[in-house]
Amino acid sequence: MNSPSLDRLCIHSITTKPWSLYEAVPRYAAVGVKGITVWRQALEGRDPRGAGAFIRDHGLSIVSLCRGGFFPALTPADRLKAIDENRRCIDEAAALGAPLIVLVCGAVPGQSLDESRRQITEGIAAVLPHAAAAGVKLAIEPLHPMYAADRSAVNTMAQARAMCTALNSPWVGIAVDVYHVWWDPDLEAEIKLAGRNGTLAAFHVCDWVFPFADMLNDRGLMGEGCIDIRTIRGWVEAAGFTGFNEVEIFSNRLWQTDQTDFLLRIKQAYLNCT
Amino acid sequence: MNSPSLDRLCIHSITTKPWSLYEAVPRYAAVGVKGITVWRQALEGRDPRGAGAFIRDHGLSIVSLCRGGFFPALTPADRLKAIDENRRCIDEAAALGAPLIVLVCGAVPGQSLDESRRQITEGIAAVLPHAAAAGVKLAIEPLHPMYAADRSAVNTMAQARAMCTALNSPWVGIAVDVYHVWWDPDLEAEIKLAGRNGTLAAFHVCDWVFPFADMLNDRGLMGEGCIDIRTIRGWVEAAGFTGFNEVEIFSNRLWQTDQTDFLLRIKQAYLNCT
Repeated sequence: MNSPSLDRLCIHSITTKPWSLYEAVPRYAAVGVKGITVWRQALEGRDPRGAGAFIRDHGLSIVSLCRGGFFPALTPADRLKAIDENRRCIDEAAALGAPLIVLVCGAVPGQSLDESRRQITEGIAAVLPHAAAAGVKLAIEPLHPMYAADRSAVNTMAQARAMCTALNSPWVGIAVDVYHVWWDPDLEAEIKLAGRNGTLAAFHVCDWVFPFADMLNDRGLMGEGCIDIRTIRGWVEAAGFTGFNEVEIFSNRLWQTDQTDFLLRIKQAYLNCT
Repeated sequence: MNSPSLDRLCIHSITTKPWSLYEAVPRYAAVGVKGITVWRQALEGRDPRGAGAFIRDHGLSIVSLCRGGFFPALTPADRLKAIDENRRCIDEAAALGAPLIVLVCGAVPGQSLDESRRQITEGIAAVLPHAAAAGVKLAIEPLHPMYAADRSAVNTMAQARAMCTALNSPWVGIAVDVYHVWWDPDLEAEIKLAGRNGTLAAFHVCDWVFPFADMLNDRGLMGEGCIDIRTIRGWVEAAGFTGFNEVEIFSNRLWQTDQTDFLLRIKQAYLNCT
């Protein structure tokens, strides 16, 4: 496999968290980054419409808005609140001009994962008409089983596929993040199936470093860890995916470095190790 | 479901790591613990035969020896070394009088998990005649996918089952540890299958606390986390398992507490939350 095309390099705004969205966008553009996924906190207090125009004016594509989800809750009232919040997220994506929302689906400590998955499917079904009307697709992101307690009861590609099948809508797909699914024994086969089902909606890259110092914010730059990212990208492309390769790294360690240097390291790691 | 019988309470020596084996055994016995799983480091510099006699003299059953495994390696020479080490482990178990060895199967960072699983199956096959001759069973322990990079390429019950099927020997089974498999979407079905296949060899309990401070040594006491241990014990018993419920907790936090108090807390948590 060759290096990926720079035309398909997207960076998640949170990857360079020390920068505001307005600092990040021109700097991404200056080094040839072509896409950005916007994290909602980067929009706080900003008009998403203006932010969208600012991004497009710099020649960047808006790949997705991160993130919706967190549907399961112990009470019906709290589940309705989550549904409302996801409708607001859809409105925000539409205003921003993002065609996709990544869903971190949620889980409730102590509630069975089966029940949480049922509530997730119900929650997505409830917001789907709103998503379709807004022209915004929803991508179920299977999260690593390390996060099953409180962040997502969707932990394998097969579970995400089962939900897509149950929901049966062109507005639902799957976000494949190598950090979460590299260990999945069915990964290659499931990526192929997602391609066939038309549900391959997003592809996120970073690396798995270990032992990690923090269960959330110690991801590695591509090449720093053990994931065979290039092979997985090959599977995704063979399955017909032609979208962006999105660099999504949460790292206390990397956030502490000079972000201008880090941006250049991202570009190198993208070319050499993705 | 009722509380489990105290007659089936076993503790892993590492759970009370600050105590030597010779301190732990009489204290376990004094509070009514009936079984012990011995960690190999607790035997270092000791004659395993003498240790075994000491444990039995205190009325404790030796449930298993922890641990063998770590079969995958980059070179054939290193794989042979691992096989030799596992033969020594089997000899130690036989001398100690442990009928079972728990296998943490191993993984090599950067080597594909498929290849590591192939090497694990080969490694177990190579030591099986030795295990059979010694009358020591080997239990494949699926480890949480969080440990797939470097500790085990066996991360689901289905993968452990596939290995048992391939090896097809009465001397190979599966160790079910709730910490590792509580999230496994096929857990109930796989426990049932393991019962039917006669491969349900061991049952380990502790709890999943989060966010954790350390990816190895921040397990919780039963009841401190999110695992529905009692339901899983129900599945294991319904599948015909009549062995010990083994408390295996690695916790820097709990090791820092008074171990005599901790032992009483373990007993309470065993009765109330297991």
